[in-house]
Amino acid sequence: MHFHDNQRKVDYVLAYHYRKRGAHLGHGSPGHSLAVISNGETGKERQAGGPGDIELGPLDALEEQRREQREEFESNLMAAGLELEKDLESKNQGSVFVRIHAPWQVLAREAEFLKIKVPTKKMYEIKAGGSIAKKFNAVLQKLSSPLQPKVPEHSNNRMKNLSYPFSREKMYLYNIQEKDSFFDNATRSRIVHEILKRTACSRANNTMGINSLIANNIYEAAYPLHDGEYDSPGDDMNDRKLLYQEWARYGVFYKFQPIDLIRKYFGEKIGLYFAWLGLYTSFLIPSSVIGVIVFLYGCATIEEDIPSKEMCDQQNAFTMCPLCDKSCDYWNLSSACGTARASHLFDNPATVFFSIFMALWATMFLENWKRLQMRLGYFWDLTGIEEEEVSSLEHSRPEYETKVREKMLKENDKSVVQKLEINATEKEEEDDDEDKLTWKDRFPGYLMNFASILFMITLTFSIVFGVIVYRITTAAALSLNKATRSNVRVTVTATAVIINLVVILILDEIYGAVAKWLTKIEVPKTEQTFEERLILKAFLLKFVNAYSPIFYVAFFKGRFVGRPGSYVYVFDGYRMEECAPGGCLMELCIQLSIIMLGKQLIQNNIFEIGVPKLKKLFRKLKDETEPGEADPEHSKHPEQWDLDYSLEPYTGLTPEYMEMIIQFGFVTLFVASFPLAPVFALLNNVIEVRLDAKKFVTELRRPDAVRTKDIGIWFDILSGIGKFSVIINAFVIAVTSDFIPRLVYQYSYSHNGTLHGFVNHTLSFFNVSQLKEGTQPENSQFDQEVQFCRFKDYREPPWAPNPYEFSKQYWSVLSARLAFVIIFQNLVMFMSVLVDWMIPDIPTDISDQIKKEKSLLVDFFLKEEHEKLKLTDEPAQRSQGGGDRSRRSRATSSAPSGPSPTGSRASSASQHTNV
Amino acid sequence: MHFHDNQRKVDYVLAYHYRKRGAHLGHGSPGHSLAVISNGETGKERQAGGPGDIELGPLDALEEQRREQREEFESNLMAAGLELEKDLESKNQGSVFVRIHAPWQVLAREAEFLKIKVPTKKMYEIKAGGSIAKKFNAVLQKLSSPLQPKVPEHSNNRMKNLSYPFSREKMYLYNIQEKDSFFDNATRSRIVHEILKRTACSRANNTMGINSLIANNIYEAAYPLHDGEYDSPGDDMNDRKLLYQEWARYGVFYKFQPIDLIRKYFGEKIGLYFAWLGLYTSFLIPSSVIGVIVFLYGCATIEEDIPSKEMCDQQNAFTMCPLCDKSCDYWNLSSACGTARASHLFDNPATVFFSIFMALWATMFLENWKRLQMRLGYFWDLTGIEEEEVSSLEHSRPEYETKVREKMLKENDKSVVQKLEINATEKEEEDDDEDKLTWKDRFPGYLMNFASILFMITLTFSIVFGVIVYRITTAAALSLNKATRSNVRVTVTATAVIINLVVILILDEIYGAVAKWLTKIEVPKTEQTFEERLILKAFLLKFVNAYSPIFYVAFFKGRFVGRPGSYVYVFDGYRMEECAPGGCLMELCIQLSIIMLGKQLIQNNIFEIGVPKLKKLFRKLKDETEPGEADPEHSKHPEQWDLDYSLEPYTGLTPEYMEMIIQFGFVTLFVASFPLAPVFALLNNVIEVRLDAKKFVTELRRPDAVRTKDIGIWFDILSGIGKFSVIINAFVIAVTSDFIPRLVYQYSYSHNGTLHGFVNHTLSFFNVSQLKEGTQPENSQFDQEVQFCRFKDYREPPWAPNPYEFSKQYWSVLSARLAFVIIFQNLVMFMSVLVDWMIPDIPTDISDQIKKEKSLLVDFFLKEEHEKLKLTDEPAQRSQGGGDRSRRSRATSSAPSGPSPTGSRASSASQHTNV
Repeated sequence: MHFHDNQRKVDYVLAYHYRKRGAHLGHGSPGHSLAVISNGETGKERQAGGPGDIELGPLDALEEQRREQREEFESNLMAAGLELEKDLESKNQGSVFVRIHAPWQVLAREAEFLKIKVPTKKMYEIKAGGSIAKKFNAVLQKLSSPLQPKVPEHSNNRMKNLSYPFSREKMYLYNIQEKDSFFDNATRSRIVHEILKRTACSRANNTMGINSLIANNIYEAAYPLHDGEYDSPGDDMNDRKLLYQEWARYGVFYKFQPIDLIRKYFGEKIGLYFAWLGLYTSFLIPSSVIGVIVFLYGCATIEEDIPSKEMCDQQNAFTMCPLCDKSCDYWNLSSACGTARASHLFDNPATVFFSIFMALWATMFLENWKRLQMRLGYFWDLTGIEEEEVSSLEHSRPEYETKVREKMLKENDKSVVQKLEINATEKEEEDDDEDKLTWKDRFPGYLMNFASILFMITLTFSIVFGVIVYRITTAAALSLNKATRSNVRVTVTATAVIINLVVILILDEIYGAVAKWLTKIEVPKTEQTFEERLILKAFLLKFVNAYSPIFYVAFFKGRFVGRPGSYVYVFDGYRMEECAPGGCLMELCIQLSIIMLGKQLIQNNIFEIGVPKLKKLFRKLKDETEPGEADPEHSKHPEQWDLDYSLEPYTGLTPEYMEMIIQFGFVTLFVASFPLAPVFALLNNVIEVRLDAKKFVTELRRPDAVRTKDIGIWFDILSGIGKFSVIINAFVIAVTSDFIPRLVYQYSYSHNGTLHGFVNHTLSFFNVSQLKEGTQPENSQFDQEVQFCRFKDYREPPWAPNPYEFSKQYWSVLSARLAFVIIFQNLVMFMSVLVDWMIPDIPTDISDQIKKEKSLLVDFFLKEEHEKLKLTDEPAQRSQGGGDRSRRSRATSSAPSGPSPTGSRASSASQHTNV
Repeated sequence: MHFHDNQRKVDYVLAYHYRKRGAHLGHGSPGHSLAVISNGETGKERQAGGPGDIELGPLDALEEQRREQREEFESNLMAAGLELEKDLESKNQGSVFVRIHAPWQVLAREAEFLKIKVPTKKMYEIKAGGSIAKKFNAVLQKLSSPLQPKVPEHSNNRMKNLSYPFSREKMYLYNIQEKDSFFDNATRSRIVHEILKRTACSRANNTMGINSLIANNIYEAAYPLHDGEYDSPGDDMNDRKLLYQEWARYGVFYKFQPIDLIRKYFGEKIGLYFAWLGLYTSFLIPSSVIGVIVFLYGCATIEEDIPSKEMCDQQNAFTMCPLCDKSCDYWNLSSACGTARASHLFDNPATVFFSIFMALWATMFLENWKRLQMRLGYFWDLTGIEEEEVSSLEHSRPEYETKVREKMLKENDKSVVQKLEINATEKEEEDDDEDKLTWKDRFPGYLMNFASILFMITLTFSIVFGVIVYRITTAAALSLNKATRSNVRVTVTATAVIINLVVILILDEIYGAVAKWLTKIEVPKTEQTFEERLILKAFLLKFVNAYSPIFYVAFFKGRFVGRPGSYVYVFDGYRMEECAPGGCLMELCIQLSIIMLGKQLIQNNIFEIGVPKLKKLFRKLKDETEPGEADPEHSKHPEQWDLDYSLEPYTGLTPEYMEMIIQFGFVTLFVASFPLAPVFALLNNVIEVRLDAKKFVTELRRPDAVRTKDIGIWFDILSGIGKFSVIINAFVIAVTSDFIPRLVYQYSYSHNGTLHGFVNHTLSFFNVSQLKEGTQPENSQFDQEVQFCRFKDYREPPWAPNPYEFSKQYWSVLSARLAFVIIFQNLVMFMSVLVDWMIPDIPTDISDQIKKEKSLLVDFFLKEEHEKLKLTDEPAQRSQGGGDRSRRSRATSSAPSGPSPTGSRASSASQHTNV
């Protein structure tokens, strides 16, 4: 954790691999393998290592070049004030760690540049609201104490230090007890990282920063160190161990997360992710409860549901038209009794209420997140950092710089040729565009992007269509065989959904990679635009992938069937598939639950637990196969940088967020058809939190602490999904479920205001004799003579003047459905806006605190100002002699009434302003 | 403009009225009337005035108290460093002006506190895009040069100074040529105003700031001075005169506004208002053009419109059912030919396109406003001011403080009584709530607000209903009389709309006052919340007031008529009113145009031009009637503060914005029915800009320069109206216009795909014999025997099994209408979101500039840093002797390869970090 002098803390580590040509000459001096190079006190050891190296044979060109670039970079770092230490390159090849320490001067300077807010000496009390609120909070705290993680609180909860951006001119403001520990580890590493990003390396094509060097393989890795081992025996506690014990174990799944500690250790960005995940998970609790209640309501009322009772009634059974040509027979509606009853579980009035609730829930969640974000921002001193945040992300990406350089080289080549032709002035004007990529340069990338995304989406759709064809053909094939005919529907649905699931899982991985590749092709300028575009593309592809089969079932399946006598055929002899007699909602529900559960289970278990383990195993095997001059002493007591080097590098939060966002979609988009979604999401997330935590604490190198005020583009995506869900739910209720037809029947057609006769009302008549030649059921075994068969649609009966046209009922039900969509959508959107507006984005107590902090700050400075003025003023006053001056100024103060009681105070104060 | 020493600039003026009891004793010494009191060089004159005042008789208590408070306040101001000058109170009564000058020290100190950004010495070039863009800009500039106001540009347009918050420790950064003119007048007055707001006056119940003192009548007015006279003869130019000549005259209506000068003179808030108004007006130009084209398209196609031709066809005339009971006769549809043709002007497919266009136009406008705001923010150095902005508005309002004080007094009274009963700890807890108003204190205010707003809205609705009743009864009364029967409809509609207009105008004024009163009752804490709540309330009331008659005509009129044989009666014998045969759209159009035009013309002419003139006249008369010991010398050469005192005080931008927002509503909300609205709005605004400009330049006291980054709540209201307009337009097209029925007829019912037969299709049959007893037309003079009359509705004919029920056509048309609403709403909203997303909020060039500015700033400071370090380091190095240190540090730099070429540079730099 420290340099070899055991004093200077290691704030950052650069790792690189070296290989020597001359090594096989046997020059390696093992005695020096531990010699340490640094610009500190141990520098004298260098004398021993130096001459040995000079005698080495010629290194190969690339290696030599890299070494030079490294040297230049490191010397630039030292020029910036950092202190470096590294081991000797004593062996033929191996990893070298450059340890970096930032001394106080550097930290202070950079903290001032970065406007890092640090606590001042001044503390103030945080108001906890009125007396009732206080008592309530106390009770709540007592009740929840077993759920609180056992983390020592860094500061008194009731007091907060006034924070102010660090300034070396105002050192007296801050409570600096020890300079070594004034900035915490995350801040130190952030400062060093900032310098690393800024430092140029003129040899490496003038690239800026460590990221370019890593991209060019000059360094292999750059990471800050973990605070220690998380599973070390004994009582010595470090933050990492604390996090492991109180947060990153499944055993503590019921506890709150120690957000402040997470933020202190990993930085604000990761802290915000876990805070968001925690809030989301806790918001899932009420929606799960209500979802279960809605489901139970469905279970409880199943016996009272008149339509399903009517469908199950064997006495008054309806003779239905055959489901396929030739091989299918007429059938009794009562045989579909099971699905009808099951679909009532999800298709009852409570789901309408539930989907309104969930739309408002989504708004509430987002509003509360904004508030939590503000609260965290206040306690983490993030208010007013936006400018600095941008600057840390606006460094150009190495790929962008490479591209620009290539372009400039090409332009230069061209301009050499063209120089004779074009005159100088025009040339100058063109120079403006040279240092950035124009639209023309980007066009191929954009075109490629557009084409690929289009192709991917088409691919997804074709796979969905393929599965549909599979379903149709398999169903037809199976129904030919009498033995399998009985459970055709179950077999076909189950296999099709599983195929869908597998395809989704595979494409998910592929699309993730494709999105990354496409974004690279686009060559965005900064890290931030790269991230945003990647997220947008990945989201688009994954969203389409995960939801297209569900959309098909919800809105398209069974709507283009045609009618008996004029069915729609996909291709010769294969009719479009119909929904089950209970309605498509049941199938939608099955589809949803299998895809959601399967996706979560498989992705969690295999991809998030299994793959890292496999990778570890693979690396271990590789390490063992490589002979490697393993240092026995080294491997016994590995240093922290060795340990961290062996961990996986941190690659960003995008996959974690993406998984949750897709899940959020499942929870909100189709909640009208699957009220149990929140429960499954909740169960998943309780595990997910600890899984992610474990990954961050035990399996990844420590990420750079990144400061952000918000979760960025994810918030927009979330609120977009929230808004989209209102429309989708409106359509699911209006179009997919039977809610509206029942309502219309009950209030317009029913004779006694009940649903009796509803099933009959929804079934149209068809005259069997009008079936097309060759499509009649062969060898019908139906027990009675069939003259009319029934089918589910609102059409005129065969005896009407315009048979099989859509009937008036059809149009009135359609009107009702559409009116419902309009009312539902606008009402819910209006309510969301209202909720949004009613809940202030900044919690009142926080905005009060912020105001208070500001006025305290002004007071603080005004006081200081006065004292300073007094100090500089008093000598001047003394030397001049206050006689005539004080007389004059008193005269001016309040003229007509002579010296007022306050006059003397005023005059003494007004003097120095006249100087 | 200056103190009597002709050197120190007057930055602010406080005015108060005094009255002396002892005056009638004849002590007033006229010789001293010009004596001047100040804390500057002229202070010696006080000696002369002083003794004369002391001999005055006893003043009355209130006056004395006020005087004392003024004295304390003024001495506190001087304590804060301001310099004051005022005239002697020589007469019995009169106005005294306290002139305030802020010396350099005060300005510098406050500028640092307020983090006012000022230009540094460093300048940089603003990139003007690529070469083509440059040329295009040059051409554009040349073309538009006659439109540009002739204002000297303060700075080179191509260069911009790097700005940095003012800091006294970094004075060398700024380009301070003369300390007196470094801060412009607006900034100076802003600084003084800030001090005035902050300074406490302990005698006046410890209130803070000048606002409380004005509220308590201790001072009468506080204002900064105008820059001079706007109509002074001669060539001496000041900013006010320049603004008058180049901006605030009707003669220059075609020119662009000199926004930078406006901002410099009036501050950012007013600058933003005029920039917004300018952008809005210029955005009205394309929409006006397209609106006129749409209207002309209607005119051009009027001869080809089949339905109106069919209606006008005298041959195949339809016999219509009577429009009222008894006294009305059957009539021929061809008699309504005129309105049918007229309504085609507004009800054609082009309006559908136009309303989509206008929805996108609104989004584009808002997006462009965001961009312009960013651009102005960049050029006006407003980036990153949000914190400071809040602080300047967060001072508690005087009313709030009074209320809190009252409450505390009451609490104290109570606590004296209760002290014996409750123990001390509980008391302490209650103290927390004492210094602010709790929900309990506010409840009566909120209740009153809620009740009043409800009452006002009910009032508006009842008036609308009253006008409806007026129309129904007058129509009935007039149709009894044969002479007036011919032009019943015209008379009734015209008078009703005029009544509506008058009511709207009157209620508008009343509601403005009511909203203010209600907000005062609410006692919001800060000026900002006051403004926001006032705006919301006033907007709600005025919106409902202006739009409720229009909403009635658009969506309710003619929908609850019933059908022949079972009409709906409002009250005995009076049927609900129907729309004209051409459809309600025509009436909506008339209603809209009259209300919009009338409102604009009358409000502009009477309220904005007439009323101020009347007020001026009134004040003049009052001044003349008051005897007033008018100072002859004074009135000949009035000082600027006298002139400004006689102007109207500035009362905020709310009315100006409100007028424009309501107009924006007219332009967007019902644009589907009145495509000429943008034209009228454009004509109005061209005048409005100059009218407002004139008001600000010539008729108002100079407002305090307020810094804001945006137009605040108005933007939210605008975007709310924009979103609302999508829904309203969807409904207007779907429900009010005949667009959908025509489409449905054309594609589903027409035999040849044309609209031939459409009119017949929309008219249902009614069997005259089924008319209720007593409602048949008396003495019908219709020329033929009537068996069936027709009415406009989709109902089953009398010979159907279920006569007069809604027919299948009704339901299919209804479905189509609703489907159109859903599609239109979601499509347009999606497009708006897309436009919003495609247009970046920050223009690329500005964001590039901001980034560049930031990196320049970092470079600037880093350079400075290095120089500073070198300066402090060199002596240290010299004294130590660089020998062993430089050797050691060179050794550390890049170990294995020995001293690298850059080593020496690195070592010299790394030294000081090791100190």
